[in-house]
Amino acid sequence: MMRIAILCSGGDAPGMNACLRAVVRTASTMGVEVVGVRHGYQGLLDGDFYESGDGTGVMSARSVSHIIQHGGTILRTGRCDEFRTASGVRKAADTLVANNIDGLVVIGGDGSLRGAIELGKVWSGRIVGCPGTIDNDLAGTDYTIGFLTAVATAVEAIDKLRDTAESHERLFLVEVMGRGSGYLALFTALASGAEFACIPETPTHSAQMVSDISVLKKRGKASIIVVVAEGDDDGGIEVLRGELEAEGCPYPLRSVKLGHVQRGGSPTPADRILASEAGDLAARALIDGKSGVMAGRLAGQMQLTPFAEAIAGTKTVPLEQIQLLKRMSV
Amino acid sequence: MMRIAILCSGGDAPGMNACLRAVVRTASTMGVEVVGVRHGYQGLLDGDFYESGDGTGVMSARSVSHIIQHGGTILRTGRCDEFRTASGVRKAADTLVANNIDGLVVIGGDGSLRGAIELGKVWSGRIVGCPGTIDNDLAGTDYTIGFLTAVATAVEAIDKLRDTAESHERLFLVEVMGRGSGYLALFTALASGAEFACIPETPTHSAQMVSDISVLKKRGKASIIVVVAEGDDDGGIEVLRGELEAEGCPYPLRSVKLGHVQRGGSPTPADRILASEAGDLAARALIDGKSGVMAGRLAGQMQLTPFAEAIAGTKTVPLEQIQLLKRMSV
Amino acid sequence: MMRIAILCSGGDAPGMNACLRAVVRTASTMGVEVVGVRHGYQGLLDGDFYESGDGTGVMSARSVSHIIQHGGTILRTGRCDEFRTASGVRKAADTLVANNIDGLVVIGGDGSLRGAIELGKVWSGRIVGCPGTIDNDLAGTDYTIGFLTAVATAVEAIDKLRDTAESHERLFLVEVMGRGSGYLALFTALASGAEFACIPETPTHSAQMVSDISVLKKRGKASIIVVVAEGDDDGGIEVLRGELEAEGCPYPLRSVKLGHVQRGGSPTPADRILASEAGDLAARALIDGKSGVMAGRLAGQMQLTPFAEAIAGTKTVPLEQIQLLKRMSV
Amino acid sequence: MMRIAILCSGGDAPGMNACLRAVVRTASTMGVEVVGVRHGYQGLLDGDFYESGDGTGVMSARSVSHIIQHGGTILRTGRCDEFRTASGVRKAADTLVANNIDGLVVIGGDGSLRGAIELGKVWSGRIVGCPGTIDNDLAGTDYTIGFLTAVATAVEAIDKLRDTAESHERLFLVEVMGRGSGYLALFTALASGAEFACIPETPTHSAQMVSDISVLKKRGKASIIVVVAEGDDDGGIEVLRGELEAEGCPYPLRSVKLGHVQRGGSPTPADRILASEAGDLAARALIDGKSGVMAGRLAGQMQLTPFAEAIAGTKTVPLEQIQLLKRMSV
Repeated sequence: MMRIAILCSGGDAPGMNACLRAVVRTASTMGVEVVGVRHGYQGLLDGDFYESGDGTGVMSARSVSHIIQHGGTILRTGRCDEFRTASGVRKAADTLVANNIDGLVVIGGDGSLRGAIELGKVWSGRIVGCPGTIDNDLAGTDYTIGFLTAVATAVEAIDKLRDTAESHERLFLVEVMGRGSGYLALFTALASGAEFACIPETPTHSAQMVSDISVLKKRGKASIIVVVAEGDDDGGIEVLRGELEAEGCPYPLRSVKLGHVQRGGSPTPADRILASEAGDLAARALIDGKSGVMAGRLAGQMQLTPFAEAIAGTKTVPLEQIQLLKRMSV
Repeated sequence: MMRIAILCSGGDAPGMNACLRAVVRTASTMGVEVVGVRHGYQGLLDGDFYESGDGTGVMSARSVSHIIQHGGTILRTGRCDEFRTASGVRKAADTLVANNIDGLVVIGGDGSLRGAIELGKVWSGRIVGCPGTIDNDLAGTDYTIGFLTAVATAVEAIDKLRDTAESHERLFLVEVMGRGSGYLALFTALASGAEFACIPETPTHSAQMVSDISVLKKRGKASIIVVVAEGDDDGGIEVLRGELEAEGCPYPLRSVKLGHVQRGGSPTPADRILASEAGDLAARALIDGKSGVMAGRLAGQMQLTPFAEAIAGTKTVPLEQIQLLKRMSV
Repeated sequence: MMRIAILCSGGDAPGMNACLRAVVRTASTMGVEVVGVRHGYQGLLDGDFYESGDGTGVMSARSVSHIIQHGGTILRTGRCDEFRTASGVRKAADTLVANNIDGLVVIGGDGSLRGAIELGKVWSGRIVGCPGTIDNDLAGTDYTIGFLTAVATAVEAIDKLRDTAESHERLFLVEVMGRGSGYLALFTALASGAEFACIPETPTHSAQMVSDISVLKKRGKASIIVVVAEGDDDGGIEVLRGELEAEGCPYPLRSVKLGHVQRGGSPTPADRILASEAGDLAARALIDGKSGVMAGRLAGQMQLTPFAEAIAGTKTVPLEQIQLLKRMSV
Repeated sequence: MMRIAILCSGGDAPGMNACLRAVVRTASTMGVEVVGVRHGYQGLLDGDFYESGDGTGVMSARSVSHIIQHGGTILRTGRCDEFRTASGVRKAADTLVANNIDGLVVIGGDGSLRGAIELGKVWSGRIVGCPGTIDNDLAGTDYTIGFLTAVATAVEAIDKLRDTAESHERLFLVEVMGRGSGYLALFTALASGAEFACIPETPTHSAQMVSDISVLKKRGKASIIVVVAEGDDDGGIEVLRGELEAEGCPYPLRSVKLGHVQRGGSPTPADRILASEAGDLAARALIDGKSGVMAGRLAGQMQLTPFAEAIAGTKTVPLEQIQLLKRMSV
């Protein structure tokens, strides 16, 4: 009987549980055993497996019941420094060999896929990835698992902030996550009706912003929302706030960093479905002999993308959406 | 100065307001006036325009402030019997001519687009559509505006039902909308972790279902959720409930019709963005001279589809998602 | 070491898990063991205990981790016909004696407390109750556990219905639960801004309603929401709908039965706190030697009420809130 | 015809709109006109009234339609420095006299009620207050309007944080609002299942906390949530984080400041009802000749409390809930 292992790695993302459920159930349908590895790659180093009761670490179809709607991951996750060393990778491979694992599914972001590439160099088993990160910075998939939920969380927060911004006629700067990518900020801005998105992909000019804001003030806008990506080129939300104040911003300013709230919560239906599709495809591809590829949905079709391509950093926010935001903010 | 009109027609869908906002703001950016028509085609017959204060019915950029997050439509909507007659269509055209309208944006479902086709036969102005319906039964767009919000509403309800289903170890039949389409039922089932989806596109065999349900019972499933499309071939939720009971379903049964709740509520971020993109594209296309087309997002790209194609009834639920649901329900 | 048992009985209510958690943790702090009984009184008859791994059924402080936010009950619940017979009650008492149980906490509604009274006649152990029901029909507590969450669920649904009601200028009849009590309907109506609440405590006159509705129509109300208690004297939502139509209601009508959705979902903060307080007080009272009483919060103070008083049916909806609804619906 | 004015003042709180709606509708039922004042006391100084279309500033029953469910306030709010001077107060009184206002309803917190006291010294009209603040720091009411919604917002955020805290096995410090009061922090902690609440009313000892946290770690807790009131005696969330790290906290730490999100959002049903009751009572009391009192719900009964008593600072968090949190955090 074929045995595959599964782990979640890096920052957690809503939908990881749904993805895990799909891998376990599809594999189980196909007569393949799935061993759960806890705490990401660290668990491979430590032989830290899912508590199955019988010591095997094997996850049954029932073990993933009613987790589709929960954020986080029942396998836990983490970053692992030792796995960044050659001896760490070797140790992980040894654990896989010792446990008769034929294949591995890795759910995580670009660091996790980089780890998978290294592991693939010293282990003969097959590895397939699922894009689990709220940052949406992987190519090969329109959206990463967790991204749309993070957008929903940020939008829900801004819907609330708009209430108080209007009541007090203020400008709010709202920092969202996304590391080096502006996707989360741009989508959040579009969906929340924010007036500006400051993202790493485009230069942020505070003087120009204050000039634009002053026009909006004259047009009767009672409040302004500026979504700021954590990776914005201007130096961050407090730097920008200082600049806007110095340039004579015509609204009183307040700032909010949404923080880790964006990482949790029940995944949206779109994320649950994407996670299920990706997990299902990953399991089938692995069992079918594929390796070194990530499952994703691109232009409406489920497909597999080589790891190197997925992490190449070629995914950029669409220019037409940046322009759309401008047309919407009049 | 160019003048266009806009109306919402048919059953309302979350995101209609976001779409309306986009049309008004993009047109306003391009120096085009937008006249709001209330109550759908009926408003065209009655000359029932947006209350702009100055009697012109023109909607300013400010008039659509802070509606992106609200369900329903500030223009109201409705079905109009008189518009189904030749004289009704002629009357609508007369109103448009009398008010110097050069183009019309129609936000609605297939009935609304059929109406637009008829109107286009007797009126020389241009017409562009936006797919506003929770049924997701229009071709030319992956999702219609409102569909993903209706899925989210149904999934949220089923998340709650799962709690009580588990506590009592029951089977719940849950009827969702969708008219002749199984999309809403299938996506709701996939995202909620429901065990079955009964949809018009596939035959519903109650005896086979009871047999499958009995297998799941033996495997230790404490509860079962069956999502039933309102247009299912088997005759509806109460018919199916009777059949399942008659066939000896091993769980106590309960049934819930979610009803019109699915039509309302704050649109999800995905719907707000899709609605904004569609409204923006519709306005630009109309101003650019296009007519007889519907704006949508297909395979990740915004595009225009001729009305006849959009309503041709060629859109079907994806087979691979029907199969995915089976693999997930073990 | 003292040992107490705990069970949930009757229809489930959001907050039962939070209450269970409080009993287990407070007892554990006081050095008392808590045995979990599954499936309500049926579990007492069958000796069906919590799966603790060691066969004892004892619930540790860790066994109730992260359940405070979940609807339903991890112990399952149910109604039990056999327990309504003298031999059934005797059998339950035998199980308690055989397992060296000194006291029992029952979380449930009035049927569950009636059962507790019967059990108390043949078993020498102590019994304390917690008011777990969405119906708010127990005296001795301002609100029962789950009531405010059910209100929140119903209000959230009506907020969505209002969107579509306004868009189409319709009247919606919305049936909520509550068995013989109008509390759930009245609170839902007040909080959702509904125009009418039809409740068992006051006569429902459809002709008068249509007359009042016509006045509201003349005053420019675009939509009307009527909340109907399932126990209303008029015969139910479809009967009322027929009457309103026959009397010439000036709005098109639609009806929605919210159904079991009201029983599930994450408890609101108020319910989580009330459930924690009630569970904590129940555990302390039981350990302190109290019996035959229910823990509740009345007029802002936690207190114990004898079972007979709690189920006496003396709790009625406040007249001033019925009057408030009228003043708000102009 | 009697005329009263209404304003919202200070930081906005969810439910202010529901309160406003109640005042307008109850007064209208009693044949009293209500003039809306914008931007709090500043609006009194500036004669800045509700845009009623006819220049009178009078709010009709229809003008408050469908605002019960919205956060913020349609009248806007604000703090007003000029009103803190004797000449400012005099100017406000002059505006009231010039507009034939007989009474004033003030919705706000303790600063707003202090302002009302000053105004009452120089103006002969009657003034009644409604407790609109998320801080719950007014006596004479169990909860202030907005408090329970702020708790709900904070709890929802912590439910999400718990997902990621568990996945990474971290400790999260979460700062909530509340100014000098620990109510918001304590209720949030109780309802979210947080392990600690650091509040101004009790001394925060970081060394003792680390010792307690270490015990919990040994008992197998995967994650810890510490809710920190913004007014905590220890100096704030970053100070505490530094201390916990310095003392050798056994979990990796992260911190989140929820910020202004807590001020917005749709009010919970409990807040909508409380706001309606308070607004209704305020209007009736004012019309009935009362003055210098605040409407609230205390120990389950609606009642009026003199301003001086309401702001006396005598309201303290209940000791038994502090103890309850300890018993729940084992």
